Amino acid sequence: MKHVAFRGRLVMLGFGSIGQGVLPLILRHIDIDPGQITILSGDARGQDVAAEYGVSFAILPLTRANLRDVLVPRLGPGDFLVNLSVDVSSVALIALCREIGALYLDTCIEPWPGGYTDPSLTPSQRSNYALRDSALALAQGAGPTAVLTHGANPGLVSHFVKQALLNIARDTGVDTAVPTNREGWAALARDLGVKAIHIAERDTQTANVAKQPGEFVNTWSIDGFVGEGCQPAELGWGTHEKALPADGRRHDFGCDAAIYLMRPGASTRVRTWTPLAGPIHGFLITHNESVSIADYYTVRQDGAVTYRPTVHYAYHPCDDAVLSVHELAGRNWDMQPQQRLMMQEIVSGIDELGVLLLGHSKGAYWYGSRLSIEQARGLVPHNNATSLQVTAAVLGGMVWAIENPRAGVVEADQLDHARVLAVAEPYLGDMAGAYSDWTPLEGRGRLFPEEVDMDDPWQFQNVRVV
Amino acid sequence: MKHVAFRGRLVMLGFGSIGQGVLPLILRHIDIDPGQITILSGDARGQDVAAEYGVSFAILPLTRANLRDVLVPRLGPGDFLVNLSVDVSSVALIALCREIGALYLDTCIEPWPGGYTDPSLTPSQRSNYALRDSALALAQGAGPTAVLTHGANPGLVSHFVKQALLNIARDTGVDTAVPTNREGWAALARDLGVKAIHIAERDTQTANVAKQPGEFVNTWSIDGFVGEGCQPAELGWGTHEKALPADGRRHDFGCDAAIYLMRPGASTRVRTWTPLAGPIHGFLITHNESVSIADYYTVRQDGAVTYRPTVHYAYHPCDDAVLSVHELAGRNWDMQPQQRLMMQEIVSGIDELGVLLLGHSKGAYWYGSRLSIEQARGLVPHNNATSLQVTAAVLGGMVWAIENPRAGVVEADQLDHARVLAVAEPYLGDMAGAYSDWTPLEGRGRLFPEEVDMDDPWQFQNVRVV
Repeated sequence: MKHVAFRGRLVMLGFGSIGQGVLPLILRHIDIDPGQITILSGDARGQDVAAEYGVSFAILPLTRANLRDVLVPRLGPGDFLVNLSVDVSSVALIALCREIGALYLDTCIEPWPGGYTDPSLTPSQRSNYALRDSALALAQGAGPTAVLTHGANPGLVSHFVKQALLNIARDTGVDTAVPTNREGWAALARDLGVKAIHIAERDTQTANVAKQPGEFVNTWSIDGFVGEGCQPAELGWGTHEKALPADGRRHDFGCDAAIYLMRPGASTRVRTWTPLAGPIHGFLITHNESVSIADYYTVRQDGAVTYRPTVHYAYHPCDDAVLSVHELAGRNWDMQPQQRLMMQEIVSGIDELGVLLLGHSKGAYWYGSRLSIEQARGLVPHNNATSLQVTAAVLGGMVWAIENPRAGVVEADQLDHARVLAVAEPYLGDMAGAYSDWTPLEGRGRLFPEEVDMDDPWQFQNVRVV
Repeated sequence: MKHVAFRGRLVMLGFGSIGQGVLPLILRHIDIDPGQITILSGDARGQDVAAEYGVSFAILPLTRANLRDVLVPRLGPGDFLVNLSVDVSSVALIALCREIGALYLDTCIEPWPGGYTDPSLTPSQRSNYALRDSALALAQGAGPTAVLTHGANPGLVSHFVKQALLNIARDTGVDTAVPTNREGWAALARDLGVKAIHIAERDTQTANVAKQPGEFVNTWSIDGFVGEGCQPAELGWGTHEKALPADGRRHDFGCDAAIYLMRPGASTRVRTWTPLAGPIHGFLITHNESVSIADYYTVRQDGAVTYRPTVHYAYHPCDDAVLSVHELAGRNWDMQPQQRLMMQEIVSGIDELGVLLLGHSKGAYWYGSRLSIEQARGLVPHNNATSLQVTAAVLGGMVWAIENPRAGVVEADQLDHARVLAVAEPYLGDMAGAYSDWTPLEGRGRLFPEEVDMDDPWQFQNVRVV
């Protein structure tokens, strides 16, 4: 079924696991001819997949120097740049698309190479908060639609949050219409008593080959994961929080919706919960949604912030990636010489990706997607469970952008969540919602005294693993 | 080749991976008839292995109540109790053996069930320091030999330390005879400038089946590992250390050679180094050798301690065990419902187990055993690389005890290291020594400021991962 027709040129930048996974979805659900599509990639990965679909493929790494020369001839007004690359500045691409009048979508606000780990930058400057701030600075005035960070997360999870809020309202007898603007959604979250939101993910995909010493293994982009894992841990900072962590810092610019910790997210663990996994430790990896959701659900009265939830990622990647992070930390973040993106060798597992809304009258509510490797393979070629959750969201964002071509620079939270979910959900496996009486105080202090706040389970202090 | 003859009765208590692995070694290297041996086990594991060797096997879980009734008829003067069980008090067994006049050896000072995690005990009371103290309290006066904690580690590594000291002396031009007593060995360590000793182990054994969610997988006793992992982290506390860690505590009894941290060792990571793995993070799991080696190498002058090295375990278990610990921590130390001791399913890997002596004039020196799964299987049936390092040491300790039957209660450090190593080394694969310029300051503070002591790399503060 075609959701929408697109008559312009589509340039896909980057053709790793997400590019390869989304191409069949684009051709299946957008009325477009393969001849309209050009893939530009920094390397040869996926060249065979492009050929399989009759799509032109060029190896052409983008740099500051050649960006305009490469893209200006390939993009005009009404064309579409889908950026699924790493190491190309999203802000530079968005600026160019606005100048040209082309649509734009990415899954991450990328810096130029080394931007995540440039020791000449402060942790604040290397944060997603700063990257988001620089992208939103382009949002002034009308312009072609540029959808920021619209993969699974960031992206899809913003729509999960809205659906979860509506579900909690329904299940707790709170009478509400579907809010129609930011203020309405923020008021609903506040009225429901949501204190914290985790992006709570447990990826159980395993392969039939073991990770080797000196090898980083993951179910999606290793460069992408290591890049964000070496950025400072970041979280939207809720109004219920009693004290900034000792290593927590506020930024001296921007919306002030989030803080960062003076350490990499890949070495920072938090307690979370998913319906299938139960209580787990996840990594507090920085993500755009930690800032954007916290910002979106901020309530102000007379200019003063009166409500905001704490928002952060709590990511349990696939087991081989947990081991890879452990090894990488032991190497003081010096990348392993070998990398392997797990795909054909996966033999079982589910990516359980959802949002965990905490502090409302029913305690904890997880809402999200459970997609198994078998389901993913049955649905779309060239995907695993992790990539399909991303590529379905990319498709949803593209459809929305084509339908709303003059929305300017927007984040997932500003999109029509129902429309995007309608496009994506056929590819998300089982959508599940589950309440729980879990709190991060469960089982604490049994063997050793721990510093916990017994008065408010939802303090970040209780969630953090020290 | 038979190292020694034994004419008494041998009771083997416990028949898990170590019991099953050591039985063929005993029959190969001690002149003993299978009819002299009785296995008492709490469960049926290994019954087939006992039958294979014609050794009697009884399922008879030992408790406080039946200990005397079971053992008194089975042990007389000159007989030998080899304790390879869990959940039977080593101190109770040693006391009984001394009363009877029987030899004794174990690989761990075990408490009665629940002793490692009894919340009514203080962390100090649940420590290996306390268990060791209670065992050494039996050491007063002559008596039959009781060899405490003589597996790979604790046990074998104490002999590695002595050999490593002699090697460093040789390689740094320090002229020394082989010391003949504790004071001599301690003076040698001091004179060489050894500030810290890690038991630095990297187990790379992997299997052809992946760990499942809710499953604890390890290459040796899961009960044993989880028990010690939930005890407080403990370390021998060197005289060069400038400050007690904020969560560090001294005991108010005993030799004062070690401290403990107010947290489980399985959640406490330290930086270490092995020749094959390079820089890694290991777990600061408490072990008897952390206390015994620190105590043994203490130099006193006029009653005051003038030298002691910091000593601790830095354990990187097999990858599936790293994942199991991560999952267990997420469950707040509530044991996974499934356990699997990896044996036949291992397809590759090496247990690289050694001692890392730090602070001498050549910096760092690792000395130890590299034993691959293939080597282990080729050498002795019913072993993997990890178990064979233990069982070879048990054999060495048994031979020494039979040769020295009236030594009383002794620790590995008090044994003749050359004799034990001569017995064990044919089963340790490649014995390797390697110098390195590694320090725990390597690669630090690159992305984020870290609190390190640049003046003395060997401060525990630098080693600990926070």
